[in-house]
Amino acid sequence: MTEKDALATTDHLQSQGHNDHPNQDMKVTPWEVEGEIDYDKLIEKFGTSLITPEILEKIKKITGELPHSLKVQYFFSHRDFDWILKKYENGENFYLYTGRGPSGMVHLGHLIPWIFTKYLQEKFGSRLLFQLTDDEKYLYRQHSIRKEIERYTYENILDIIAVGFDKKKTKIIVDSKHIQYLYPIATDIAKRITFSTAKSIFGFSNSTNIGMIGFPSIQAAPCFLPSLIERKPTPVLIPAAIDQDPYWRMTRDVAERLGYYKPAQIHSKFLPGLGMSAKMSSSKPETALFVSDDPETIDRKISSAFTGGQPTVALQRKLGGNAIGCPVFWYLRYFFDTSDESDERYLKCKTGNLLCGECKGDLSNDSQSFIIDFKKRREKAKDVIDEFMYDGEPYDR
Amino acid sequence: MTEKDALATTDHLQSQGHNDHPNQDMKVTPWEVEGEIDYDKLIEKFGTSLITPEILEKIKKITGELPHSLKVQYFFSHRDFDWILKKYENGENFYLYTGRGPSGMVHLGHLIPWIFTKYLQEKFGSRLLFQLTDDEKYLYRQHSIRKEIERYTYENILDIIAVGFDKKKTKIIVDSKHIQYLYPIATDIAKRITFSTAKSIFGFSNSTNIGMIGFPSIQAAPCFLPSLIERKPTPVLIPAAIDQDPYWRMTRDVAERLGYYKPAQIHSKFLPGLGMSAKMSSSKPETALFVSDDPETIDRKISSAFTGGQPTVALQRKLGGNAIGCPVFWYLRYFFDTSDESDERYLKCKTGNLLCGECKGDLSNDSQSFIIDFKKRREKAKDVIDEFMYDGEPYDR
Repeated sequence: MTEKDALATTDHLQSQGHNDHPNQDMKVTPWEVEGEIDYDKLIEKFGTSLITPEILEKIKKITGELPHSLKVQYFFSHRDFDWILKKYENGENFYLYTGRGPSGMVHLGHLIPWIFTKYLQEKFGSRLLFQLTDDEKYLYRQHSIRKEIERYTYENILDIIAVGFDKKKTKIIVDSKHIQYLYPIATDIAKRITFSTAKSIFGFSNSTNIGMIGFPSIQAAPCFLPSLIERKPTPVLIPAAIDQDPYWRMTRDVAERLGYYKPAQIHSKFLPGLGMSAKMSSSKPETALFVSDDPETIDRKISSAFTGGQPTVALQRKLGGNAIGCPVFWYLRYFFDTSDESDERYLKCKTGNLLCGECKGDLSNDSQSFIIDFKKRREKAKDVIDEFMYDGEPYDR
Repeated sequence: MTEKDALATTDHLQSQGHNDHPNQDMKVTPWEVEGEIDYDKLIEKFGTSLITPEILEKIKKITGELPHSLKVQYFFSHRDFDWILKKYENGENFYLYTGRGPSGMVHLGHLIPWIFTKYLQEKFGSRLLFQLTDDEKYLYRQHSIRKEIERYTYENILDIIAVGFDKKKTKIIVDSKHIQYLYPIATDIAKRITFSTAKSIFGFSNSTNIGMIGFPSIQAAPCFLPSLIERKPTPVLIPAAIDQDPYWRMTRDVAERLGYYKPAQIHSKFLPGLGMSAKMSSSKPETALFVSDDPETIDRKISSAFTGGQPTVALQRKLGGNAIGCPVFWYLRYFFDTSDESDERYLKCKTGNLLCGECKGDLSNDSQSFIIDFKKRREKAKDVIDEFMYDGEPYDR
């Protein structure tokens, strides 16, 4: 299969989404992702742009290769990513900014944007700010416990470092620890956002607590921190799942009034849960593969995963499987298979030449070896935490 | 006149308020004080308690003398002040906490609660936290300029130190500089206050910015900081003008749920403006005596002050003046006269034995010498700013 064919197949998969029936119940906010996701509709609803073949061509030209997440369109949407590339071509580098809400252990779905961010850092030589919104996680749930969030903040810092970001070019910000660097920018932003605006962007109500209402200005603040570090307006690119887009929409609204560039975004999809829910979710632990899971747990979760297979082997051989509706397929496609391997898997499944057990076996093996390796890197991360912590100083000089 | 007589006169003055007509337009919020103030109604509206003769007796017993601000009922209302005194008698000391919004230079009206706070610090040996809400001042006005607020923050720090607080027992917190110490407590509080609640307490609307909506949790935070410093629930007493009471009402609502004591308050009135407006106001500079004014300016402002006098000397001699409606009288009573002197002035004015020029002369002389002296102390304050700044460590050990 040529690369062109592969992309055509990908386009085909893409246009179908993960299932065929139209979706009435899709809900995508920074706090809830529910229902079957129609990504075309999301682009329309959020007012973002599809990543075009021209943009992909340009990235290939600059970096020499297209990253897997773009090949399989896991990152599919953007705002001003073309502008970022133009700036880069004109000799102006950008900062990367992404984040994590430390409400639990990290699963593979969380890692994809981080691995993509690492790719961008390597290829473009960009500095990265990584924010941990421990304050939001505390504010969001009425019964959240600070000690627990502190624990996950620590664990997630290890996860971030284990991804392999460049130590010299990467700084981690923990909101409650580094608030003094964010607060002046946050007040600049908050001053320009009325409750009406926040309500319409985030769906706040009269029963939302005043901490949550103020919080978007804290998540927005790192968008402008690079301009303070560099002492000049500095482009920022945010790779993150599309559910975070409301924050950047708000941030873009105030950026120019404050003398900054609008932050650019590149948006990912969600990794489906093994139970075929909207996205892999920490709140349904049986449907997600956590980096802290042991091999037996991974094997058990994958064994009981939902698939797009037929009820019997005979029917599978005869009718073929429904890869599009199969989380195991998407897992392998987005995380472990190359795009060529994945296209081939799709065809073999569809034509009855592949049984679910084989795919599950592949996913189990791949996940186990990935996680074993990841855990080793997590252990090593413990020794370098301090070097990754933001300290208000310019870095990578 | 015996002291008992004097207090009776004071009660009489008190019950009349500053003028005789009932007031429809009174507005008292942390951001606006408008109309003629009816303090009895405020106590009723805010649900606070009048300072009783029993409380005054107890203070006298503990401290040996009644401070001027209590003698003339400038501090007139409280919440749990009696509880604070009881705790003190049982060997448990309290922290004092008060603050200032650094939106301009300080006038004499601002100083009265600070001087009273200094008295409490001296007599009870209490530690004091003094908060400068530079963030709120920035957030409140759409066109506020950060540089200007930074300048006033510096000037106001000098004012605070010039009052003469005990260097060992006093720490100044500037919100934007010390946010890391306040933020964890502020999120604890904010999490427990819905927009509905904040709306009804502070009058927020859909057009309020999200920074202002979150801000009450920042002003509330120092109420609980002493408990963190002392590592046990620690009583806190807030001496401040009554317009700040909404913050403490909110704070008291969440205190016990967070394992702290409810902060106690002692509330002052407002010093009337020289134009007989509701309170001396920085936004009407001709009606206020600033500590930065030169002697000529003070003299000019007092010369053109509104008084309760008659149109001619002859009428004044014949009919007597209206001290109750005279800002010059109240200025002298609250700030410079002893309570005996003030009662005497009241009687002499009422009986036509005192002309407005004499009162204005007294006020001008007293203000000028106070301000000349205060400016000297402000100069000296420049050398000790660092020693007063909060640094997260226990102090006075």
